[in-house]
Amino acid sequence: MNISSPPPERLVHVPLGERAYDILIGPGLIGRAGGEITARLKGRRAAIVTDAHVAPIYLEALMDSLQTDGIEAVSLTLPAGEKTKSLEHLATVTDMVLSARIERNDAVIALGGGVIGDLAGFAAGIVRRGVRFVQIPTSLLAQVDSSVGGKTGINTRHGKNLLGVFHQPDLVLADTSALDTLSEREFRAGYAEVAKYGLIDKPDFFSWLEKNWREVFAGGAARAEAIAVSCQAKSDVVVEDERETGRRALLNLGHTFGHALEAATEYDSRRLVHGEGVAIGMVLAHQFSARLNLASPDEAQRVEAHLKTVGLPTSMNEIPGALPPTEKLLEAIAQDKKVKSGKLTFILTHGIGQAFVADDVPSSEVLGFLEEKRPK
Amino acid sequence: MNISSPPPERLVHVPLGERAYDILIGPGLIGRAGGEITARLKGRRAAIVTDAHVAPIYLEALMDSLQTDGIEAVSLTLPAGEKTKSLEHLATVTDMVLSARIERNDAVIALGGGVIGDLAGFAAGIVRRGVRFVQIPTSLLAQVDSSVGGKTGINTRHGKNLLGVFHQPDLVLADTSALDTLSEREFRAGYAEVAKYGLIDKPDFFSWLEKNWREVFAGGAARAEAIAVSCQAKSDVVVEDERETGRRALLNLGHTFGHALEAATEYDSRRLVHGEGVAIGMVLAHQFSARLNLASPDEAQRVEAHLKTVGLPTSMNEIPGALPPTEKLLEAIAQDKKVKSGKLTFILTHGIGQAFVADDVPSSEVLGFLEEKRPK
Ligand SMILES: NC(=O)c1ccc[n+]([C@@H]2O[C@H](COP(=O)([O-])OP(=O)(O)OC[C@H]3O[C@@H](n4cnc5c(N)ncnc54)[C@H](O)[C@@H]3O)[C@@H](O)[C@H]2O)c1
Ligand SMILES: NC(=O)c1ccc[n+]([C@@H]2O[C@H](COP(=O)([O-])OP(=O)(O)OC[C@H]3O[C@@H](n4cnc5c(N)ncnc54)[C@H](O)[C@@H]3O)[C@@H](O)[C@H]2O)c1
Ligand SMILES: [Zn+2]
Ligand SMILES: [Zn+2]
Repeated sequence: MNISSPPPERLVHVPLGERAYDILIGPGLIGRAGGEITARLKGRRAAIVTDAHVAPIYLEALMDSLQTDGIEAVSLTLPAGEKTKSLEHLATVTDMVLSARIERNDAVIALGGGVIGDLAGFAAGIVRRGVRFVQIPTSLLAQVDSSVGGKTGINTRHGKNLLGVFHQPDLVLADTSALDTLSEREFRAGYAEVAKYGLIDKPDFFSWLEKNWREVFAGGAARAEAIAVSCQAKSDVVVEDERETGRRALLNLGHTFGHALEAATEYDSRRLVHGEGVAIGMVLAHQFSARLNLASPDEAQRVEAHLKTVGLPTSMNEIPGALPPTEKLLEAIAQDKKVKSGKLTFILTHGIGQAFVADDVPSSEVLGFLEEKRPK
Repeated sequence: MNISSPPPERLVHVPLGERAYDILIGPGLIGRAGGEITARLKGRRAAIVTDAHVAPIYLEALMDSLQTDGIEAVSLTLPAGEKTKSLEHLATVTDMVLSARIERNDAVIALGGGVIGDLAGFAAGIVRRGVRFVQIPTSLLAQVDSSVGGKTGINTRHGKNLLGVFHQPDLVLADTSALDTLSEREFRAGYAEVAKYGLIDKPDFFSWLEKNWREVFAGGAARAEAIAVSCQAKSDVVVEDERETGRRALLNLGHTFGHALEAATEYDSRRLVHGEGVAIGMVLAHQFSARLNLASPDEAQRVEAHLKTVGLPTSMNEIPGALPPTEKLLEAIAQDKKVKSGKLTFILTHGIGQAFVADDVPSSEVLGFLEEKRPK
């Protein structure tokens, strides 16, 4: 991975046949969005969905660029935060998109983090049974994960992401300079997903991150490189298994434990954000694999050390406030969508870069392990 | 088309690759639903959605059959009528489906007409980004049209079917004896769609209907035959063009005028139901084609004569109450989804069984024609 003289902009192509699309990665893309969109989409109308944190910083530049290139755009600014991924807000977005007379070739544009991307993507997937969709992810998590792959969705009282559709974007513009205004905590949370790609099947990338993480945080070429490698990794998995029936489950490394912890902290972002849950979850997945004699404990330690170095939490002890009883945590795991007819499915590993899907993990093992690892 | 010794049950296979499915057509299928479902689907849970007209007649028989075959089922009965295709009812359905812990391999079952099918299918398409879906259509329209092809949707204040997804059913059970309790007016309305398949590209089927329509209305072998031919015809078009980018538009024969009339009567089913609008619309499409010198006026007369014979309305004069000004009707046509970037798309014909898509119909021609045909 030579990053000495990188091209100013990276392109990852997601080869999904008639649903193929480009991901552009580089600084300043928001200001050039109009040109990139008109080069690829037929429609000349757009409905932008964004949130109250992002709008004041980036909406004007985006609107100006669209106008310059002859795209008639309207925008809707929603409250920031996970609660916005609701049926009520979906109704608001679809109503706005229909009012804007968006037709099949016109676009819904998501300008924001994963929350806005998931919500706006869902709306784009159901208005007129599918209109064009452009992702302009502004959080690191959205740039390396949620904006790629076509999963969209909202939360219900029954759980997270329980309603949604697969609707691939037609273009992803990952403006790396937009991450400069992201809080450090959110940047770190997104970084957990970057590290995840190394841990799944790219041991060299994980080593590279161990050496270069400071540059990734600082911005510039290393950041674009890390994002491009991540998008390519996600794209590879998605292309192999677009509708998550098999291999795509690997992307859930760290997520089974992570989701249980998010549920245990009642999705209170003051206590835990998604990427932090994933960081702890990835460490737990490596430790659990070691306990099952699938991997060496050294590997778990190396994962823990790196995530700790970048400032991510790596154990349940670091979560502020009390956690529910271990049985409750297990219940949250069993209720996770990755459960098939009652059996526990986990992503385990033989070591860094050697993750695999385990279909039949005994819940007693999980219970014993969690009991040992939880705060005493 | 020899119907002298028909098999007791007809099967139409829709060959859509990994989304392929069977349509079974015959009497008594509701009472055998459990066996047909367990033979094809892995899950053993089901959530039934039905309406207040259908539930008292058929729900118990369906629940009994499911239980006999080991499927744990819950049901939700909604008000009958087009208003049920709303975002509010979609929320109710998805909440019920999630409460029932329906997973990807379990099924949502639609027991009812097109309203229930469209709504329940939409819910099945978005819960967990898609669960299994079984259509048990109980209206003629649903058996020959809406239950086949995977279009689902709801209405919004901006218009009909503006939100939805493509989500193919995994099985369609068209119980022909269930149509015995359908009102004669609803049966006739569904018959308009049956005749449509003949008019699109099956002149022999149209001739057969002219001879055998009484038997189709009476039930028995001719009814199953007409439904099977219709399902096969719809399947052929859907397989060629699953996502309606081209040829599938032919299914809209009579629908551009028909939708405008439905809008003009404010979707008041006392004045006009969908199939009646389609009947008038098909006559208008043939007359308009004759006016444009594309077809002989004799063909339009033959279409009109047959639809009149079965008791369907064939001209705007038969719609009770006043219609809006011609300009308003044209506006409704232009707002129809089949408009591409402002141009008027119509399904026109060279004669019975020779329909085609016309992409560039001048609106002045339409205006003149409507002016001539509207009630004076
Ligand atoms: N669809 C998928 O495949 C997928 C994958 C992973 C996660 N997700 C979803 O993504 C969501 C999490 O995404 P997220 O972490 O981006 O959350 P988010 O959208 O809530 O963004 C995090 C915070 O950062 C703010 N923000 C975003 N960009 C900013 C910028 N450039 N400057 C300043 N502030 C900025 C947001 O307003 C918000 O307050 C979850 O809902 C999760 O379920 C989806
Ligand atoms: N998805 C598609 O491809 C597609 C195609 C065509 C129409 N549609 C939709 O279908 C809907 C119209 O369908 P519909 O005409 O079946 O309407 P519907 O579902 O309202 O049924 C018509 C009436 O008949 C009653 N009914 C149904 N089956 C009965 C039975 N066996 N006995 C007694 N009463 C019965 C219903 O309760 C209702 O009152 C519209 O919403 C239309 O948009 C969808
Ligand atoms: Zn994640
Ligand atoms: Zn119709």
